[in-house]
Amino acid sequence: MPPEVLLEMAQPIIHHRTPQFSATLDQARERLKPLFGTGQEVILLASSGTGAMEASVINVLGPGDQAVFVNAGKFGERWGKMLGAFGMIAHEVKVAWGHAVEPQQIEDALKAHPDAKAVLTQASETSTCAIHPIDRIGEVTRRHGALLIVDGITSVGVFEQKMDEWGVDAFVTGSQKALMLPPGLGVVALSERGLEAARNNHTPKFYLDLVKELKAQRDEHTTAFTPAVSLIFGLNKSLELLHRETLPRVFARHQVMAEATREGGTALGLKLIAPDAPAPGVTGLIAPHGIDTGKIVRFMREALGVAVQGGQDQMKGRLVRIGHMGHLAPFDMLIAMSALEAGLKHVGYEFPAGTGVAAVQSRIARSI
Amino acid sequence: MPPEVLLEMAQPIIHHRTPQFSATLDQARERLKPLFGTGQEVILLASSGTGAMEASVINVLGPGDQAVFVNAGKFGERWGKMLGAFGMIAHEVKVAWGHAVEPQQIEDALKAHPDAKAVLTQASETSTCAIHPIDRIGEVTRRHGALLIVDGITSVGVFEQKMDEWGVDAFVTGSQKALMLPPGLGVVALSERGLEAARNNHTPKFYLDLVKELKAQRDEHTTAFTPAVSLIFGLNKSLELLHRETLPRVFARHQVMAEATREGGTALGLKLIAPDAPAPGVTGLIAPHGIDTGKIVRFMREALGVAVQGGQDQMKGRLVRIGHMGHLAPFDMLIAMSALEAGLKHVGYEFPAGTGVAAVQSRIARSI
Repeated sequence: MPPEVLLEMAQPIIHHRTPQFSATLDQARERLKPLFGTGQEVILLASSGTGAMEASVINVLGPGDQAVFVNAGKFGERWGKMLGAFGMIAHEVKVAWGHAVEPQQIEDALKAHPDAKAVLTQASETSTCAIHPIDRIGEVTRRHGALLIVDGITSVGVFEQKMDEWGVDAFVTGSQKALMLPPGLGVVALSERGLEAARNNHTPKFYLDLVKELKAQRDEHTTAFTPAVSLIFGLNKSLELLHRETLPRVFARHQVMAEATREGGTALGLKLIAPDAPAPGVTGLIAPHGIDTGKIVRFMREALGVAVQGGQDQMKGRLVRIGHMGHLAPFDMLIAMSALEAGLKHVGYEFPAGTGVAAVQSRIARSI
Repeated sequence: MPPEVLLEMAQPIIHHRTPQFSATLDQARERLKPLFGTGQEVILLASSGTGAMEASVINVLGPGDQAVFVNAGKFGERWGKMLGAFGMIAHEVKVAWGHAVEPQQIEDALKAHPDAKAVLTQASETSTCAIHPIDRIGEVTRRHGALLIVDGITSVGVFEQKMDEWGVDAFVTGSQKALMLPPGLGVVALSERGLEAARNNHTPKFYLDLVKELKAQRDEHTTAFTPAVSLIFGLNKSLELLHRETLPRVFARHQVMAEATREGGTALGLKLIAPDAPAPGVTGLIAPHGIDTGKIVRFMREALGVAVQGGQDQMKGRLVRIGHMGHLAPFDMLIAMSALEAGLKHVGYEFPAGTGVAAVQSRIARSI
């Protein structure tokens, strides 16, 4: 996290029923809108990203409603579990890990289930490091009159989102990725159609009631329940930093980090898990056969202090995921790649030392 | 908040799937137990206190279940709204603001509604600054075989709680009061009976599923979803400080602050809203007829920088609530009382200057 944000959050906590808190809440909500690409309403919740995902489901859909969801990884699967938990009828669009969903698959699913009220997908599936084409999915859902619910936890603030243009109706993110904050703050942006659905919604709910929250946040400049005050102050500061850098530069920075990481990893002989639709926020590298990436990840973290993630579920032991979202700059990828090289060497993989780092440096050089 | 806690939370965020996070989570959960007076399971949630209240309702009760709830103020009323929102049948025990519920009222309600599965109440009703006798309520619920769900948001860590001895089955608190943290962390302690009810529960839920969370926190030493990492590190530190002070001293400190505030306020001619059952964490003082306490509270906050609260709903404009929980010591009540005197003077109320402060000082002197 940026020191400015840490210091902001270390201020004494003020009460949330004060003009000072209201001013910060208003400003943070306003500053969030360009990250979503929306002029519509943004609602903050004291929850992690999963709580915000749940809020989008239980406010837009009701028990017995049909919905199509994209399962292209662990977080797509979570949409299915949530829909099931709340009594909705979930139609799965299954996508192999590392691939983007084809808009035609959504089209087919909506034709097969014409009563489906919504389509749920990730913008960027963190478990497989792949992105889905939300713009083209939005064309399909609009044509079919279905609502579009998108998990943007590793896309909002990472690369450009055009919620209004694409036709996203509920767009979710969390505080701990591109927003450069600790986890604990969920965000849901709602379109007019999404809000209309929420107003007519009858799923039992209380804490995650978006209509009640919106009324409090927009009309009363406060929250319905005690908010995560320190995180909201931190959010407002971190949005100030992002806008000062300007969003085009923030997005370009992420793009350079992503390309540098991809080029470094492939130069080492690793393979991209999602070569056709790689995410700008996190890169997934598949290790050569027989190499346990779990060991690499542990070594990088414990011996070198460089935090990367391994694979989950079917990719456990086979994947190294390098995050490059938030408070990081291209040169930081030199460190990540150098640590990856050390990790590979640690498990006995042979390669010309420095190849990965040289590729990273070369990609950065092209951006200067 | 204590500087030690602020500094702890300003540490770089570590990933929540690491041994370091697991060790902190385990320690914080263990350190919480004596505050509840329990040897049973304590579960952390990334939510405010209201989210934890909701978790206790939707994990213990199911749609169509009957429940008795104590409505003695704004937070008691919230139990009723929650029960209604999730399709439970709520039987209200109405108590005048400023009073404790009589155990006989619970007894009568359980006799009138023998199928009631649970009784829900506050331990300390923050809106009226009154406490309820949880020990005697527990005797009644146990005798009737009903579960007991208690909101301890302004009691846990403020005065001694004996969850196991009293027979509380779901005991809720939040991070922002006695735990000396920003809001954003909810806690639910469950008894064996409470956990059993949760295991057999069918209320639709996902994010606030306590059985899933307990499995993750107890068996896997992590959380089911991304936790509020910085708050959990802060919590562990703030619990370290409380245990270092020792809980008996923490409780005695709150008691001295409460009595000093009561004696100071009454010396000024204000009346306690809850003279028979005053809360140790917050004191409610009713201003003499014709005085608008809203003006006093604003003046104290804006001109003097002393944060107190006014009354809510039926007590709006009539009450000053002075909180004395968490990172405060008896001498701080000199400041609060001096500011209250200045506020009263500001609205034209006449009294011998210094009377309130002298009473505070006198009560503190008796504790030294």
